[in-house]
Amino acid sequence: MADRHDEKSMSGEDFLIDAYFRPLATHPGALALQDDTAVLAPPPGFDLVLKTDAVIAGVHFFADDPADAIGRKALRVNLSDLAAKGASPGGFLMSLALPGDTGADWLRAFAGGLGADAARYQCPLLGGDTDRTQGPLTVSIAAVGWVPHGTMVRRSGAKPGDRLFVTGTIGDAALGLRLRLDPESAARWGLDGPSCDHLLARYLIPQPRTALAQSLRQYASAAMDISDGLAGDLAKLCRASSVCADVLIRQIPWSEAAEKALRHDPNLVETAVTGGDDYEILCTVPIDQIAAFHAAAAQLSIDVTQIGEVVAGNAAARFLDAAGRAVTFDRPAFSHF
Amino acid sequence: MADRHDEKSMSGEDFLIDAYFRPLATHPGALALQDDTAVLAPPPGFDLVLKTDAVIAGVHFFADDPADAIGRKALRVNLSDLAAKGASPGGFLMSLALPGDTGADWLRAFAGGLGADAARYQCPLLGGDTDRTQGPLTVSIAAVGWVPHGTMVRRSGAKPGDRLFVTGTIGDAALGLRLRLDPESAARWGLDGPSCDHLLARYLIPQPRTALAQSLRQYASAAMDISDGLAGDLAKLCRASSVCADVLIRQIPWSEAAEKALRHDPNLVETAVTGGDDYEILCTVPIDQIAAFHAAAAQLSIDVTQIGEVVAGNAAARFLDAAGRAVTFDRPAFSHF
Repeated sequence: MADRHDEKSMSGEDFLIDAYFRPLATHPGALALQDDTAVLAPPPGFDLVLKTDAVIAGVHFFADDPADAIGRKALRVNLSDLAAKGASPGGFLMSLALPGDTGADWLRAFAGGLGADAARYQCPLLGGDTDRTQGPLTVSIAAVGWVPHGTMVRRSGAKPGDRLFVTGTIGDAALGLRLRLDPESAARWGLDGPSCDHLLARYLIPQPRTALAQSLRQYASAAMDISDGLAGDLAKLCRASSVCADVLIRQIPWSEAAEKALRHDPNLVETAVTGGDDYEILCTVPIDQIAAFHAAAAQLSIDVTQIGEVVAGNAAARFLDAAGRAVTFDRPAFSHF
Repeated sequence: MADRHDEKSMSGEDFLIDAYFRPLATHPGALALQDDTAVLAPPPGFDLVLKTDAVIAGVHFFADDPADAIGRKALRVNLSDLAAKGASPGGFLMSLALPGDTGADWLRAFAGGLGADAARYQCPLLGGDTDRTQGPLTVSIAAVGWVPHGTMVRRSGAKPGDRLFVTGTIGDAALGLRLRLDPESAARWGLDGPSCDHLLARYLIPQPRTALAQSLRQYASAAMDISDGLAGDLAKLCRASSVCADVLIRQIPWSEAAEKALRHDPNLVETAVTGGDDYEILCTVPIDQIAAFHAAAAQLSIDVTQIGEVVAGNAAARFLDAAGRAVTFDRPAFSHF
């Protein structure tokens, strides 16, 4: 790119910002990316909610994934956390490390996907930093959101007797990743083209549950998004709340594609439950709030499924099979380490 | 590290957080890093100031720099921006991408340096994300700060007649980087050991001017930190303010070490003025505020030097030699692109 901008009047980074990222900085507080920092007047009576999550080529996505999908995923993994906490998006900062061979077409598509989602989720770009790297493409986003003062939904509020819920379906992205790494799996799992496409798409671009944020504030006693797998994330929620949880595996919602795969290879349940990248919401709801929670989710056309309940005990989670036996997993949670 | 934590009870990332980073999360809103997000109640009447800047091994620091210095630099480059805008630090998010061979000793030292500065500048860790990378070590920090509503100091407020000031000394870090890349320069530049140490230290660990933030809000019409070189950053300030500026090169403050080097090789003035990494403050002060600005800086023991003035015109900056002739630079601003 160095040869494509006017060295006399602007630096390469200025050119990048001008060409691709300024259109995403629609919030007046971004100062059109023409100052060192962004500035926002907090909405009175609201708390600031902060999250950072990075995606790295070869770790969280494939370097040859479509650039627009990479842009979307980088933002959405952060939006998913804001949603789980009951927060509305306010905007985001982005720090972008680009390999030397990143071309203008790639950047245009990346900024296009990112910008479409910034508009869709009302989460404009507030500021950023762009650097060259010798390593893989890395997108670190820090998202800011807002909740009415004191209403952020924590991991730590679950109480014995509360019911466990998840949004959407579980395990699709983990199975999609397996398929992406080993396309031969499709035949072994008895999956047709559309089923494969569904699972691959679920890995490629998560669906943050932004619309559910207000209902979580109203009805959930605890919540988090499922990014490292249902089993591991539920264990974290249990630890934070000092409770146990029992999950009935047969109640876990599967997509049609995942159900087909699980029928062909029942061992895949471990992948589905521990593999990560769901970006669905796991929450606990007091019994007397369940009807209202269901009604609110139905109004938003978001599927929510009761998968078990919170029980008293020492901070663990049990997954029970149809016979009521606890199933153990070899690798309870996804971790990059 | 994978072999050093208890896989049964916590993931590798949980172990890293527990061992190294939780002690830095002293703000109650960090929720001890045990939730998905941080949550802060904004101080009433204040605006939120947001900045992200990343440092990458081989780009912004050397992979074999001391780990504690890398931690300090990663935070300080962001604190420098907050200071220039008149903001007080509130806290920071960190996204850390670690090569596979990063050891426990390195992490302990990195977290130690970062934590010491987080305490020193009252800028606690609020949340983070840790990943493995195949590439160079990358630390992306997003800092949040606060200014009384409407008082953020922008780049765009400079007016003809205002005087130009810089804090500290200019060019040390750029000369330090040259020395680091080519230690033979020391002899050519006539530098003794302590002079070399001074320049190398200025590259290794910047000194954010956090203490000056309030005075900038009170007395400066425009300000920014100098990260890409005085020449390039002044050009940005001029563009944002739609003004010109004249800098008298002989008034630019040099350290004793830089002055020695410039005496041996007058061409080094270009390196000093365009090389970047100063992390000093460039600001413009209306004439009737200069005495008060000087007094405030003196009270804080921060050197501030008048280097020129703002003039009407078309958004450029001129550097004038002792004879009043404009000097042009081959490469006006540092850019990674």
